[in-house]
Amino acid sequence: MRITLSQLNLHIGNFEGNLAKMLAAVETAKSQKADLICFPELAVCGYPARDFFEFDDFIHRCQQSVDELRKVSHGIGIIVGSPTRNPVLAGKDLYNSAYFLYNGETIGVQHKALLPTYDIFDEYRYFEPAKEFKTIEFKGKRIALVVCEDIWNVGDENPLYTICPLDEMMPQKPDFIVNISASPFDYAHALDRIHTVRANVERYKIPMFYANQVGGQTDVIFDGGSLVVSPDGFVFDEMPYFEECLKTYDLAEVVLGQQNNEQPKDKIKLIHDALVLGIRDYFQKLGFKKAILGLSGGIDSAVTAVLATKALGAENVRVLLMPSQFSSGHSVDDARQLAENLGIQYDIVAIKPMYDAFEAALASQFAGQPFNVTEENIQARVRGTLLMAMSNKFGHILLNTTNKSEMSVGYGTLYGDMCGGISVLGDVYKTEIYELVKYINALPFGEPAAGLKGIVPQNTITKPPSAELRPGQKDSDSLPPYEILDPLLFQYIECRKGPNELIAMGFEEALVKRVLRMVNINEFKREQAAPVIRVSIKAFGMGRRMPIVGKYLL
Amino acid sequence: MRITLSQLNLHIGNFEGNLAKMLAAVETAKSQKADLICFPELAVCGYPARDFFEFDDFIHRCQQSVDELRKVSHGIGIIVGSPTRNPVLAGKDLYNSAYFLYNGETIGVQHKALLPTYDIFDEYRYFEPAKEFKTIEFKGKRIALVVCEDIWNVGDENPLYTICPLDEMMPQKPDFIVNISASPFDYAHALDRIHTVRANVERYKIPMFYANQVGGQTDVIFDGGSLVVSPDGFVFDEMPYFEECLKTYDLAEVVLGQQNNEQPKDKIKLIHDALVLGIRDYFQKLGFKKAILGLSGGIDSAVTAVLATKALGAENVRVLLMPSQFSSGHSVDDARQLAENLGIQYDIVAIKPMYDAFEAALASQFAGQPFNVTEENIQARVRGTLLMAMSNKFGHILLNTTNKSEMSVGYGTLYGDMCGGISVLGDVYKTEIYELVKYINALPFGEPAAGLKGIVPQNTITKPPSAELRPGQKDSDSLPPYEILDPLLFQYIECRKGPNELIAMGFEEALVKRVLRMVNINEFKREQAAPVIRVSIKAFGMGRRMPIVGKYLL
Repeated sequence: MRITLSQLNLHIGNFEGNLAKMLAAVETAKSQKADLICFPELAVCGYPARDFFEFDDFIHRCQQSVDELRKVSHGIGIIVGSPTRNPVLAGKDLYNSAYFLYNGETIGVQHKALLPTYDIFDEYRYFEPAKEFKTIEFKGKRIALVVCEDIWNVGDENPLYTICPLDEMMPQKPDFIVNISASPFDYAHALDRIHTVRANVERYKIPMFYANQVGGQTDVIFDGGSLVVSPDGFVFDEMPYFEECLKTYDLAEVVLGQQNNEQPKDKIKLIHDALVLGIRDYFQKLGFKKAILGLSGGIDSAVTAVLATKALGAENVRVLLMPSQFSSGHSVDDARQLAENLGIQYDIVAIKPMYDAFEAALASQFAGQPFNVTEENIQARVRGTLLMAMSNKFGHILLNTTNKSEMSVGYGTLYGDMCGGISVLGDVYKTEIYELVKYINALPFGEPAAGLKGIVPQNTITKPPSAELRPGQKDSDSLPPYEILDPLLFQYIECRKGPNELIAMGFEEALVKRVLRMVNINEFKREQAAPVIRVSIKAFGMGRRMPIVGKYLL
Repeated sequence: MRITLSQLNLHIGNFEGNLAKMLAAVETAKSQKADLICFPELAVCGYPARDFFEFDDFIHRCQQSVDELRKVSHGIGIIVGSPTRNPVLAGKDLYNSAYFLYNGETIGVQHKALLPTYDIFDEYRYFEPAKEFKTIEFKGKRIALVVCEDIWNVGDENPLYTICPLDEMMPQKPDFIVNISASPFDYAHALDRIHTVRANVERYKIPMFYANQVGGQTDVIFDGGSLVVSPDGFVFDEMPYFEECLKTYDLAEVVLGQQNNEQPKDKIKLIHDALVLGIRDYFQKLGFKKAILGLSGGIDSAVTAVLATKALGAENVRVLLMPSQFSSGHSVDDARQLAENLGIQYDIVAIKPMYDAFEAALASQFAGQPFNVTEENIQARVRGTLLMAMSNKFGHILLNTTNKSEMSVGYGTLYGDMCGGISVLGDVYKTEIYELVKYINALPFGEPAAGLKGIVPQNTITKPPSAELRPGQKDSDSLPPYEILDPLLFQYIECRKGPNELIAMGFEEALVKRVLRMVNINEFKREQAAPVIRVSIKAFGMGRRMPIVGKYLL
């Protein structure tokens, strides 16, 4: 038996586009003499479709796509994810299901039992969990078909769940497992995924074919890395990350095993590639081509500009250099140098005239008040307004350059440097951005012939971080050093350690109180922040839901 | 037996404050010779505490509050909501529970079985559903104690759920039901609540005591309206909306029934009172006193200013009048008149100098480009920057004045008129705002002696809505008339009807397509909008989760 995995970049609610990709894949699989092709979880509509699931018409469109796929299933089995209606009145209206289509018929439907309802996931909001588990007979083989999370409670070891779907299926003696997934990226997830697929294979001693989505859906990135694992526990194949892929495997060869084809998993490279894909897909799926951003001469905007240029092409990236009266001379030089290295269009627009106009307009209200954060924020908001004006006039999307350290402690101006359609670095701590720039500078940039290393000017990397909004300002005036701040933030945000646990870990008590308070009181800023491309296990946005008026730890 | 209901305004994570209120209520109940006092669902920590539930330390603090209440339970039973830890490894870590404390002991704990996971609710994200249902014996009576949603599947009639907790308890022959709730406000909910409580009472023929939270928690408002319903189905008592209340009832009198004390339920009055409370609590719970907003002479900002003045006092509300070169003369006059009627401080700051400075700064980039929405947005952003500068300098919170019609179709400028800490009218359609202003103008405003009717100038109400960002601009140039737009939006947003259903209802096809597209492509703006005070069954924010890169209905 020959089995095709089709790792596709799907688009939420783009029924025509998603179906066209699947129909083309079916043709390719047929040409490769496949008996069976497997598409990802909820492939007809893309993932996460969120509250579109509450619209009857949306479900109807999903079913129409399944109908179209059924029509081309003559001679080839097609496994595809789609919502299905729950025919019973009691319980949620929908199931998250895997269809098995063959010869113009539906020969099996398996619903998902384990519905992730944590972090970015809201599946119990929409779906009723499966209670029945039936394997499917196909061409003399018996297949255990499961959706995504259903393999993540191996032998009931996951404390979140109380059922193990494959344990339920095993008495029916399946020959192999097919898992269809929409398993999102974080920089540690591919390893987890392999660990989990292998743990299942080792428990049941049969191979698993695992088809994942790939591509960016605003904040959530799917990395692909679809898997074939042999009964001997070897990773027979792992598809590449961050790109579409179609491959056909011979079941007999997979059963033999003894072949290992894992992808390398370097954290910084994974983050780099995820961000490039995240930018590219955000623009492509919204129907935009051109990006704009402010280039300050600092490291965050420099890295954002490089990633944007890789994602969209130099001809589609434009930057504004917007020096203030407090900007150091080298800031403009560094920014200009980077723009020239990248070959992107840049303009220099000084912000002093607008800043002066605001100060004059508010002179009577502000009389006798000292220069403070208000004036810093006015400058940041003048920059935001300039960038948005360019965006509005020429159809650019503004890229936000805020990093995760700043976003955590609220070191940024709402409606100023926090503007943007998407936050590129909002899930990357400042200390990680230094690693990212090292990685970027070690890579040749541009066409191999022109390949230039060290694209980001050294001065941008080595100078102390500063917002340059008052004379001689440095980040370290307001914040602990990033080498101390970032590990504390990581423990609080990613690992969800409370104050006592953090102090017990060795963080200084006063620092813990100060930093946790900063994080919590700035929830109101993050509430209005741009969506953040997610690369860690806990990004700001849908995956971290905090009250604004809370008083805990203030 | 004498039973006290304590309807409290709690504050998320304010353990000391919430405990102090409950301790005071226990003293009052004792002085009223109560045998039992009932506090709302999750009263120790406030609702919705969201991902704070993922912090061990937060749960520990909840337990400490329960311990303190247990200490004062000598001679009085105390029912209080708190998260409890699930001692079993399998399943979610927590239960959403009702403690029954008496004489220094815990004499019962009942977990919640029906976990709302729809609209604003995420309970299955944190809690394991109850599987055991035990009534509690107390002073010779048997009590069926249930948490909130557990009464919302009367006789299994709610399609969301597959279990009816009170049906499970009835074989134990309870004498009465206690329900502790955190049931949020929408303008139709109090009626639903009475209907549901009464349906339970009619099914089981025993009285119900229902204790609800009251107060604003950012976007979500709890209206109180705690209930006592007699076995004859009469509403023996309904506590007032939007304020704290403590009352002690004699069980024998409640059993007798024949008394009806429902609160009046006028939609517009309810919305009015909810918004005033929402503003007041947002400020109070964040520790702020002073609000600022832009007063345009239009109806939305006028209504917002009135509501803010009622919530915070005239001395705490300040407004900016920011005419553009396109503002009509009467706009400033109307705004000034309202400010004078309200007795609030106002300043007039013309935006032309800043606008001109932006146009000059971008002159070379914009050369040859026509005036368009870019220039309109620059003006809106200059206003946003002025308001935020005042907010930063003097510690005001900026109130957002966008209405639900505008927010739906994206008729507003991100980082401009969409700025603000909280959106007062973002869940109120324009046509409803006209009803609201009529209601406001019919009420006397200010001290009874000075009581002034018609506080909002008539011209503000009667002139055609306009953003005044280009010569002669009117809303109706870009949007269908609000009398047509709003009902369509209501059917799409609140009732979740798809395009075919809307057309079948009689809405014109071209209009349906145009409006649904406008709603969907502006998801990116709403993603960065201020939190919206929720008054309808479907507000923008946590209750409506939509993808940004979706292509459905575009």
